[in-house]
Amino acid sequence: MPQGKPSYVPADGLTTRQRRNRPLVVVHTGPGKGKSTAAFGLALRAWNQGWPIGVFQFVKSAKWRIGEETAMRALDRVHRESGAGAPVAWHKMGEGWSWIQRSGTEQDHAADAREGWAQIKRDLAAETYGLYVLDEFTYPMKWGWIDVAEVIEALRTRPGRQHVIITGRDAAPALVDFADLVTEMGKVKHPMDQGQKGQRGIEW
Amino acid sequence: MPQGKPSYVPADGLTTRQRRNRPLVVVHTGPGKGKSTAAFGLALRAWNQGWPIGVFQFVKSAKWRIGEETAMRALDRVHRESGAGAPVAWHKMGEGWSWIQRSGTEQDHAADAREGWAQIKRDLAAETYGLYVLDEFTYPMKWGWIDVAEVIEALRTRPGRQHVIITGRDAAPALVDFADLVTEMGKVKHPMDQGQKGQRGIEW
Repeated sequence: MPQGKPSYVPADGLTTRQRRNRPLVVVHTGPGKGKSTAAFGLALRAWNQGWPIGVFQFVKSAKWRIGEETAMRALDRVHRESGAGAPVAWHKMGEGWSWIQRSGTEQDHAADAREGWAQIKRDLAAETYGLYVLDEFTYPMKWGWIDVAEVIEALRTRPGRQHVIITGRDAAPALVDFADLVTEMGKVKHPMDQGQKGQRGIEW
Repeated sequence: MPQGKPSYVPADGLTTRQRRNRPLVVVHTGPGKGKSTAAFGLALRAWNQGWPIGVFQFVKSAKWRIGEETAMRALDRVHRESGAGAPVAWHKMGEGWSWIQRSGTEQDHAADAREGWAQIKRDLAAETYGLYVLDEFTYPMKWGWIDVAEVIEALRTRPGRQHVIITGRDAAPALVDFADLVTEMGKVKHPMDQGQKGQRGIEW
């Protein structure tokens, strides 16, 4: 259970309230399960606070995140119909980010990822969302498609009160160093180790 | 990213489909953040599959899980109004489990926890839910209020296809040993270490 008391109070010139409300960069990394699911659990808290949520899904799969996407879109509709909660925008890579329609079948994942990142930078500058879920965003950094230092700089200089969650294995050490809250999901045991394939409702 | 291929296929007499659809006991433990939020992320997947969800909250706090609770209750309403998704039942300890109203101010947390567990056993026997979120359930086991061996036996003999997620620090070794999927959330960095107190939308 979380402890309410910080272990020390820094001499940073901030009031407790200012410090408490500082926007966070959160990283969920490591080989275990729960990195993205925990991000979407945080999104439920943000939704309840009325913070607009922007999900940027840096993966390409027909079924991945379908459960989260369907539920978050339902919560978006609840917001639009009743005013409760917050709006949720869901952007997907691979089948074309939601703000572009690319024709043809040739895929350029690196360009896709960079387009996604360019949009995130625009949204950060415009303070579009209160919470950003950058799902599997460690991979385009790991693969060299997106520059880690540029990401850190964009996050460091983002205006206002925008929380950002980045998920995925192998988060860059510089990003871990920069982030405010980092959890390493360690795999203790997984059914696939016992010969069980992923199943609906659990893996997606 | 998850790999679709199991590392070996066991000689357990099950078909791939049977093995794939085996109901799971999932444990999220460790000192890091994300244990409960990842459980609620899984609940979004279950909701999308139409599995009735039962949340049993073994914590006592006015604000803990308020974001998750509000969002999950909104999804329950979506289900009741449109048929989409699944019903969500949310049971809380401390202020009296939702199926009992206890008068008086004397609190007996151990008895509360045991009542919660007794209800879970009844629900498992009746196959009430497709997914059980037993939030912070490691603590009543750790504190000796609920017997770990009894929990394992009830889970081992549960009928049908009921997935169970247990969250909390210090999961009992026997429970970790028994569970199908275990993730250890490790704390790499937390804002409270830098003197920042928990904030709304992030901690609750």
